[in-house]
Parts: sequence; structure tokens; C-alpha cells
Amino acid sequence: MHRLSFECDYTTGAHPEILKKLTETNSESLSGYGADHYCESAKEKIRALCNNDVDVFFLVGGTQTNSVVISSLLNSYEGVIAADTGHVSVHEAGAIEYTGHKVLTIPHHDGKIMPTELSDYISNFYNDENHEHMVFPGMVYISHPTENGTLYTKDELKEISCICKKYNLPLFLDGARLGYGLMSKNTDVSLADISHFCDVFYIGGTKVGALCGEAVVFKKSATPKHFMTTVKQHGALLAKGRLLGIQFDTLFTDNLYFSISLHAIEMAELLRTILSEKGYSFAWESFTNQQFVILENEQLEKLKEKVGFSFWEKADDNHTVVRFATSWSTRKEDVEKLRELL
Amino acid sequence: MHRLSFECDYTTGAHPEILKKLTETNSESLSGYGADHYCESAKEKIRALCNNDVDVFFLVGGTQTNSVVISSLLNSYEGVIAADTGHVSVHEAGAIEYTGHKVLTIPHHDGKIMPTELSDYISNFYNDENHEHMVFPGMVYISHPTENGTLYTKDELKEISCICKKYNLPLFLDGARLGYGLMSKNTDVSLADISHFCDVFYIGGTKVGALCGEAVVFKKSATPKHFMTTVKQHGALLAKGRLLGIQFDTLFTDNLYFSISLHAIEMAELLRTILSEKGYSFAWESFTNQQFVILENEQLEKLKEKVGFSFWEKADDNHTVVRFATSWSTRKEDVEKLRELL
Amino acid sequence: MHRLSFECDYTTGAHPEILKKLTETNSESLSGYGADHYCESAKEKIRALCNNDVDVFFLVGGTQTNSVVISSLLNSYEGVIAADTGHVSVHEAGAIEYTGHKVLTIPHHDGKIMPTELSDYISNFYNDENHEHMVFPGMVYISHPTENGTLYTKDELKEISCICKKYNLPLFLDGARLGYGLMSKNTDVSLADISHFCDVFYIGGTKVGALCGEAVVFKKSATPKHFMTTVKQHGALLAKGRLLGIQFDTLFTDNLYFSISLHAIEMAELLRTILSEKGYSFAWESFTNQQFVILENEQLEKLKEKVGFSFWEKADDNHTVVRFATSWSTRKEDVEKLRELL
Amino acid sequence: MHRLSFECDYTTGAHPEILKKLTETNSESLSGYGADHYCESAKEKIRALCNNDVDVFFLVGGTQTNSVVISSLLNSYEGVIAADTGHVSVHEAGAIEYTGHKVLTIPHHDGKIMPTELSDYISNFYNDENHEHMVFPGMVYISHPTENGTLYTKDELKEISCICKKYNLPLFLDGARLGYGLMSKNTDVSLADISHFCDVFYIGGTKVGALCGEAVVFKKSATPKHFMTTVKQHGALLAKGRLLGIQFDTLFTDNLYFSISLHAIEMAELLRTILSEKGYSFAWESFTNQQFVILENEQLEKLKEKVGFSFWEKADDNHTVVRFATSWSTRKEDVEKLRELL
Repeated sequence: MHRLSFECDYTTGAHPEILKKLTETNSESLSGYGADHYCESAKEKIRALCNNDVDVFFLVGGTQTNSVVISSLLNSYEGVIAADTGHVSVHEAGAIEYTGHKVLTIPHHDGKIMPTELSDYISNFYNDENHEHMVFPGMVYISHPTENGTLYTKDELKEISCICKKYNLPLFLDGARLGYGLMSKNTDVSLADISHFCDVFYIGGTKVGALCGEAVVFKKSATPKHFMTTVKQHGALLAKGRLLGIQFDTLFTDNLYFSISLHAIEMAELLRTILSEKGYSFAWESFTNQQFVILENEQLEKLKEKVGFSFWEKADDNHTVVRFATSWSTRKEDVEKLRELL
Repeated sequence: MHRLSFECDYTTGAHPEILKKLTETNSESLSGYGADHYCESAKEKIRALCNNDVDVFFLVGGTQTNSVVISSLLNSYEGVIAADTGHVSVHEAGAIEYTGHKVLTIPHHDGKIMPTELSDYISNFYNDENHEHMVFPGMVYISHPTENGTLYTKDELKEISCICKKYNLPLFLDGARLGYGLMSKNTDVSLADISHFCDVFYIGGTKVGALCGEAVVFKKSATPKHFMTTVKQHGALLAKGRLLGIQFDTLFTDNLYFSISLHAIEMAELLRTILSEKGYSFAWESFTNQQFVILENEQLEKLKEKVGFSFWEKADDNHTVVRFATSWSTRKEDVEKLRELL
Repeated sequence: MHRLSFECDYTTGAHPEILKKLTETNSESLSGYGADHYCESAKEKIRALCNNDVDVFFLVGGTQTNSVVISSLLNSYEGVIAADTGHVSVHEAGAIEYTGHKVLTIPHHDGKIMPTELSDYISNFYNDENHEHMVFPGMVYISHPTENGTLYTKDELKEISCICKKYNLPLFLDGARLGYGLMSKNTDVSLADISHFCDVFYIGGTKVGALCGEAVVFKKSATPKHFMTTVKQHGALLAKGRLLGIQFDTLFTDNLYFSISLHAIEMAELLRTILSEKGYSFAWESFTNQQFVILENEQLEKLKEKVGFSFWEKADDNHTVVRFATSWSTRKEDVEKLRELL
Repeated sequence: MHRLSFECDYTTGAHPEILKKLTETNSESLSGYGADHYCESAKEKIRALCNNDVDVFFLVGGTQTNSVVISSLLNSYEGVIAADTGHVSVHEAGAIEYTGHKVLTIPHHDGKIMPTELSDYISNFYNDENHEHMVFPGMVYISHPTENGTLYTKDELKEISCICKKYNLPLFLDGARLGYGLMSKNTDVSLADISHFCDVFYIGGTKVGALCGEAVVFKKSATPKHFMTTVKQHGALLAKGRLLGIQFDTLFTDNLYFSISLHAIEMAELLRTILSEKGYSFAWESFTNQQFVILENEQLEKLKEKVGFSFWEKADDNHTVVRFATSWSTRKEDVEKLRELL
């Protein structure tokens, strides 16, 4: 019997449609480094969805994308503002600092930054007499969904975007799990909104059905000069760019990206219902594919034997927050089976 | 009719066996970041071939591998010695310098460095009264095959290795096209030799049948501490490490890596015979999958219409050196067709 | 009438003895880059005071010293732990991050870090399942006196040092104002203690009577290889090293460094007494040359017209914390004059 | 008897006028970090001499200045073009690479770059099909006088400047020994010319009479945003900025900078005449304060006992090139004494 696995959203391979397409196109002779027609077609599809004058680039993974995008937008004397729980703040092994830039943290609220706190941070900086001896805020980083599975509202995005415009700071949205955010039942934010409010964002592939790959979308006015050379310099340019082009072309054909994201959301909703019914409580509310459950430590040990989930953080000496994640590949029967196991 | 393509060795996708394996294993739930059993199995196979106490890591691409390996081995005051034509010297958009290190160049001879010139460079450095104001040589980089398709002999490798040992400099071999070097009809260098003489080298996947991926092999004594954290910091750690593990596991099952490399060599030999018979001359001798042909500029323009090859360098005002590359996917019938076109 | 100036401890030039010595030795022909006999003599005097097997180097300024020392001790995957108010955390324009390293902050307590919180931070790091995706703690930075003028006790230093030893982390003490710490009436910490407990520290010159210059003291076992080359690489190596050698040689002749520091302490004590008598209250207790006073905002505006001090931080909407600093050059008559002005 | 010393131009302290001024102003209470009236006065004097809309900044040393200026002007994907003998290329311990940028070398001609070779280098770069995988030329670095003591003509400067303008590359002139270039008997280049043709240059203090200090002059249009923050980030901002302001204010009062440079030139001319008369030959012609003499190795050993000079390079197995340098502090009687010793 196979073990139930809710550890994360990258435990399985790629959506079968992607593998099929990779196989079908395998013997085509294509130019390297992203100059092939699949990349072009994928970019066109994404540009169309963004209702916007944008440039699209394909990179391999999330940390890489954050590091390349952030370092290409900041001046040397600038840092990036992020939530103290932001992926760039804690879980990228110092990838941002490695490029010479400080991550300037502000407190998170279930993973999100608050517009007023952002605004205060920046105005305090400029009011400080010694700010010329400090790291200038150079851009703002948010994730959507956040690491906690939470989502910004359209109003919040708008407010953050206004603050960024006021101070001339690019707004960068990390969309490693963007599909799951867009398909949430509890969001008023569309892809067009994101494209409108952000100067740059990325559409996560790795965690939404691809083997690897993130599609970076820059407002044309924000695209760094010679960005592909910067990508190469960071060791982030795939020789066989087709691997990314074909995957994203497939994901944005027939709305595949959205339909598989929706499936993950439905599985997460089902999971949440089951857990609630069984009396489990949640560390905070999430309407995306990640659910954060508070377990007694004993309960945790027992449950661990039957089902896979991941440690999130200690709640107190006797309780632990754990994460259950669904994905495009989660099977309904597996979620249902959980009901029996609890 | 499809156009003949000899531009490079990464125009097609992956060896079909790889796609088959990716498809078969697709729904398996596996741990991320390389902690899956396919990665482990692939590593074991490579370790066995290296007859040696080695650690194996999988990275995504060549420039990335060079950048991560070199920066993880150098002290901050050190640079890497390389041929002035070395990939790290000219064609990686400054990826090494981006990590803070100088590439210290010595002259190439058809892409290779000469042991005596290497030795002179290092001893001259230490004899210079001002060397404390200069960049210390911290390691040696060679490529095998070189960018020019040439190969070191076992004796040359041994000599270079001796010089490195004398000065306590790690020797790093860039094997982006290693398979084509090992299967050359004109080499006395085996994989075990490379593993013996080098402190670190990589077995190229991208150009030898994989969609992406390079297998880095460190002598255990040379493996940098917390190397995976460094890989993460460089944005080089794949979440779905399976993509690399499965590919290398396939390549090192039933000698696939070697048999497909041998095929490319045979196609290159045939190509060379045909070109010779037709009276073409070569810029230098190569016994690997890349052949460098001197064309009159007019001839070049005509040939370009019928067959794909790539510009290498100007020979003189009327002549140009161009590169023909074969690969695991080159079809004999295509090479034969070239005979008719010339 | 000259304006009273308590803004900081670097408003005047050098101790007259230093200028005298610079003038006397001016026409001597000396080797560059620190290879002169004044540097050697100064180093010897410092080594003797440290009762210890140490290496001494002279650098130009504080931020430079922090940046060179920290980056030369850390591995690329490591960061430096510091108080969130530490100079390296906030007031060095990202100099540490510029070298590729994260400053890992823990809460300050009047500028100091607490041993238990340091210990918890490190053990939590190693207990975190995901710590391989995080920045490794690679050394500990403390300042003594702190930016808040406070001092560690000998017991605290010992505890911090034990924690560092347990985890094999170098302990670095920023002594930009070290003289004022050592001469405080309220300390049990000697220079020998600092040399014993720290792997590296620096004796500040710029703020204690020199025109510029900081003396870095490494335990021999902690001295980075080829440190002078690293200093050169950071643009921190003075051609006329004599400028630093002569200054430190003078400061460590006849206990000048200590006697001028003691004078500053006595002036600070007098200042504190006067301010107390006049009913001013202090933001926190300091027994060094910096005193932090809480002023009503109106009071502040008035006082500003008569005497120089510096803004520290807002206490609340109506109150502000300001800093009064004395130095080796503060005149008793000026402090007394303050009594009349308040 | 004191030993004759022609090793370099930084063996003595500062011009006495500077020490006098430092002493006179010593007890003045001044703002830190360059915000004092001496800095302002010095800047004004330099601006006036440059006949130009320029910004002036004071840094501490030459390598530091090169590193801060170059890194603040380059985009991350760009490198700096320099002669292969340029100070930034070989004798700064990799300071430029440490900031992430490659030094792109072209051949030197007695220390100078040739306009046609510069032009060819850049146009070849843009003609290369693969140039997006290479380091973009981002600025041009020249030294004047060069490391070999040679000087550009006004026509050469103009040509280089034209090439830079054509490709929109800032031109940076390293004037570590600028005074000695301007006062050469054999130059048609004035300070105003340099200010006209260069986007940024620096007026060397360390080697022309100061204890330390270089005055960086940017065309206003080329001044990097928040340059002082970048200076701080590099650890290059002196707390007691007065040390630099007072020195440069003195050097640019009553033409001191020029008159002491002229003295050095006259001493070098005398030295050259004496050496010529005695039958010594020169490695190349220099009309500045450095003279490069070819010695038989035996002759060298003997001469070394009586007079200080520095090793430059091996000429052949039996001959060596050595450097004699004069400075503002060279005494005529010492040069005359050399006549007797030869």
C-alpha cells in the first residue's frame, strides 16, 4: 500500500501532458538558450494573459529567480524589503546577500506585510538623519501565496503598489505557487491585477506541475538591460531552453495551469473540511493548497506513521504546527483515505 | 525536407531512454532537493566507475557548475588559472568574476594549457616580490575535451596534476563533453584516470543526451564543507532533484552514456572523412565530436543555405573557421547526405 | 565664543603627541605598506599588552575593519551573529552584505546580546530540519562599549566565549571605543581579558585620539592566511603605513591610550552628574564616554541652540533620546559651562 | 650617513605645509565624514581648476578609489577595459574582481593603450555573435602617468574619449601620480583637458605629498547616485574627513600641488641626465618622476648596496629593469650624490 503524502507540492514529477509534449518534440532540432519557437509561443501566451506590455523570461527555480531578479533591479547601495518570514529572508541560504544586498525585514502577519508598516519603514528611513550610512530600500518583495499560504487582497496589493510608486521602488511578487493563489475560492486578485500592480513577478512552474521552471514577467519599462547576460552570469541560463519553453507552452495551452491549480485547491478544501470535522484546529486560515494544522506532540508522532506532512514550527512545548500540502497531482481518494486514518 | 543540423550538440531533446524513465517514474512521490533514491542510485553508479573515494552532486548546467565549484574551492584572495580560451575565461558572462574571483589566464595551444607554461606561471608568481599585491593562484581549470575539441594525453594530465600537487592547488576538469572525450579513438585517458588526477571534475549531461544536468565528482578530501548549502545559495539546487537523478541513473545504466558518446564519435569520424575527401581543410585536428573546418567566405555563404554549422572565428580576411558538431542524436543518413551537398 | 560640542568623539583632530611625532619623523625614508619600524614597534607594544600569542594589523577605519575581518573569517555559506542594533547591522550601509554575508540579528538589551539568547539562536538553528537551506552562523560580533555605551561584564564575555567555543565560532569584538570601555569606573574587563576571550578584536584609534586607524588583534591561531592580501583586495591597505604605525606607537607609549581614555571617562562622569543634578533623566545607564539623555522635544529645540549633541532616537511623541559624547579632547571648562547653560 | 632612497614616491611623510596645517587646525571641532569646511574649501579649489561642472570626493588610497569608482559605474554584466599592465589588472590583489567585475585587458605599449586597439576590441565584441555570453565592456580605465611613467598626448586622450563617447562608455583616468604628469616637460595635457576628456579621474595625493588621500573628480553628469553611501559600504569613508580635506586644501593653496610636482620632475630630469652620462640605458623613455633603467645583474647587486631603487622586471637572463623614483621630497644633493656613486 502506498503511503499518503502531503509533505509538499513538489513530490511528484510533471503533469503527464508536459511529459507527452517533451516526448513528441524530442527529436526536433532547436536553437539553444531559449531562442526556440516553443519558448516564443509560451511567452506569447503569457503576455496575452497579462493584458500588458511585458517581457517574459524562463528561469529554472525559485531561489535562482529571486536572486537574479532582485540583484538585477537593485543598485549596489540598496536592499530589498521583505517580510521577516519571506523566503528570501530565511530559506535561501543567503542567496540575496551573496549578490551583495541586504534583505530589509519588516514583521509578517501570517506571512504578509502590512501596507502601513511598509510605508512607515520607508518614511522612517528617509527621516533618519543617518540614513546615508544605512542600506537604502530599493525594492519590495512579497510572495503570493505567502509561505503561510495566505493571500493579499486586491486592495492590499493596490496599497502596496501605491507606496512603491510613491518612493519609486519596484514591486516584485514571488509567485512560486501563483496558480494556487489565483484559483483560491477566497481571492479577488487576478493574473491581470498582478501584472498591473507589480513591476515584476513570476509564475511558478516547479510547484505547479512542471519538472522545473519559473516564468518571470517584467513590465517592459522595468526589464533590466541585457537581462539574459545577467541570467548567464548567474549560471541560470539553460542550454536546452526548450525544456522550459515546452513546459510553459503546455501549461498555458487550454488553461492547463489554471485547471490543475484548481484541482489542488479543491483537494485542499476537502482536506480542510475533513480535518475540521475531525476536530483539528488550524494555526491560521489558509485558502490555498497549504494547510497549517496544530497537533499535540503525541498525536503528531502517531499520525506521522500513517501519513506524510511536514514540520512547520513549534507552537508551544506540547504543540506543533505542521503543514499539509496538496498539488495538481493529489488524488481525491488519498484525501478521502485520510478521513479514515484520523 | 528537414535541414541538416550540425550547429551544436544540444539541439535535440534527451535520449529517448531518459524520457521513458521520466515518464515511468512520474507519479512516484519522492523527497525533494536530491534526497531521492534515483539520485542515490545514480551517485552509486558514478562512484563505482570512479574507482575512488568520491562524493557526487548533481547540478543543472555547465556555467553554473563552474561558478559553484570554483567559488567554493577558492579562498577570497585566490583566482583560478585557465587557458585564455577556456569557457570560464570568455563565454560565461563573467560568472567567475561575479563570485569575486579573477580568472588568471595562460596561453592556450589548440585549447589546451601546457604543463611547462602552467609551472612557469606559478613559480613566476611566487618569485615576484610584489606577489602579495596580486591574485594568488588558487586552483587550475582545464576542459577535456577542450572548447576546441582537443584532448589532454594521460601524460599531460599527470604532469598538470603533479604541478597542482606541488603547489597544493586543486585541479578541476570541466567535462561538459566528457563522454565524447572518453570515447575518442585517439585518447589514452579513462574516467578512472580523470578521477585519479583531478580533485574535482564534472560529467556533462546537457551535451551528452540529457535535458539538463552535470554530475560533479569531488575527491572526498576535496569536497567543500556544506556544499549543498553553497549550491542553494547560488540558486543551483533543484527542488525536483529527481529530474537530475533519473537522468543520470539512466545514462549510467547499461553504459548508455558511453554508447551514445561512441555513436557521436563515429558520426564525427565519418564527417571528417567526408570533409577531407571533398578537399576541405581543418583548422586543427580534433578527435572528438566537434570538427573545425576552414571555409572560404563565399563557400561559407553557399553552404550555410543547405546545412547548419556554427561560426567559430575569422581565419583571415577571406577565410573563416566554422564548427560542425555531432551528438548522440546525429543520424548517419544526415552525415551521408552531407556528402552529396558538398 | 566657541560653541559647546558633545556631538561625538571624532570632532577634533589627533592627540597633540601624535601630530608631534608625525612631524618629527616626517622626513624619514620608510618602506611602504606597513613594513616600517614604527608599525613594528607599535605591534610589539600591543602584543605585550595582550599577554598573548597574537598578530596585529593596522587598518584605517571601523566599517572597513569590520568588513575585512568578518569577510576574511566567514565561509561563503556563513553569516555573522550580531545585536540588531550592532553597527554592522544598521550603520555600515550594508558593508557586510556587500561582501556576500548575512548579518544574523538577535535582540539587543541596551546594545548588548544576552548569552542565553545567543545560545538559543545557535541551537535552534541546528535543530531546524531545514537549516541546510539557511545561513549558517559563522561567527559572533559584539561591540564593547556597545553603540549604547554599555559594557559586557567579564562573566558575560566568558559565557559568550564559551558558547562560541562550543560551536567553533570565532568571537569578534568591535572596540571602536575600546579605551573608553577599559577606563570605565564600572568594568571588570581588562585588555588581557578581551585578548583571552576573543579570537579577534580591534583597538579603536579614530575615536580615541588618532586621526584614523584601528589596530586589529588576532589570536595567532585565528589569523586568516594572507590577511594583508585580503586587506589590499578590500582597498584597505595604506601605502604610507607609517601614518598608522606612528599613531599607534605614540598611543601605546607611556600609556597615552589609557590616560586620554580615562580623561574622557572623567568628563563623562562629570557631565552625568551635572545632568542628573539638573533633573535630566537617562534613557539607560552608561558608564562610558557616551551619555543618553531623554529630552522633551521643546527642551531639545532650545538646548540645541546652545550646545551640540546628537539625535539618537524618538522615545515617544513628546520625547527624544539624545547623545552627549566626551572624548580625549573634551575640556573640563566646557563641561562646567554646560552646568550654567542647562 | 643616510642611504640614498629612490625606491618609490611614498617613502617620506607629508609635505611640511600639510603637517603644519593639520597641527594648526587640530583643536577645531568639525563635523565628521567630510561635512567640514576644509573639505568644502578643497573641493571648491579643485572645481575651479577643472573649469567644469564637476563633483569632488575624497577617498583614502588608490586601490580603494579604483575599486569604488569602477564598481559604482559598471552594471553587473559589465567589465572595465584596461591595459594588461594597468594597476587594476595586476597589482590590486583582485580588488576589481572582488566587486564582481572582470578586468578586460588589451595590450599595453609602454603602459599605454592604443586608441585603435581599444576601438577594435569594442567593435569586435559587438560583432561577436556570442557576445551576450560575454562580459560587456562597460568603461575604460587608463592611468596617466601610466605605471611605466609614460604619458598620453592630448590627441590620444581625445581619440580615446571619442571612442568612449561613441559606445557610451565612461572614461576613467587613474591619476595616482597626476601631478608628475601635469608638470612633465614633455606633455601637452593640462588638468582642464583631463577634466574635459574624462568622465571621472582622480588627483593622487598619497604619492604627491599627502599622508594619504585621493581626490575623485566626476563630471556632474557621471556622478553615481548616493556615491557617499557606496563609499561607506566599501569601508572607504573616513570618520575624520578633515584629514583629507585639510590635506587637499593645503595642496591646492598657492599651487603647492604643482610646485612640488615640478620639483620631482626636475629631480627626475637630473637623475636621467646623470644616468645617461654614466652610460646607463633606459628600458623606455619616461618624462615623469619614474625612470626605468636596464642594469646588468652583477651591476645591480653592487649598486643595491649603495642606493635604494626597486625591481621592475627581468629584461633577459643577464639584465634587469629597475625603477628610480623621485618625489616632492627628493633632495637635489641626494641626486647629485648618486653621480659620485655610479
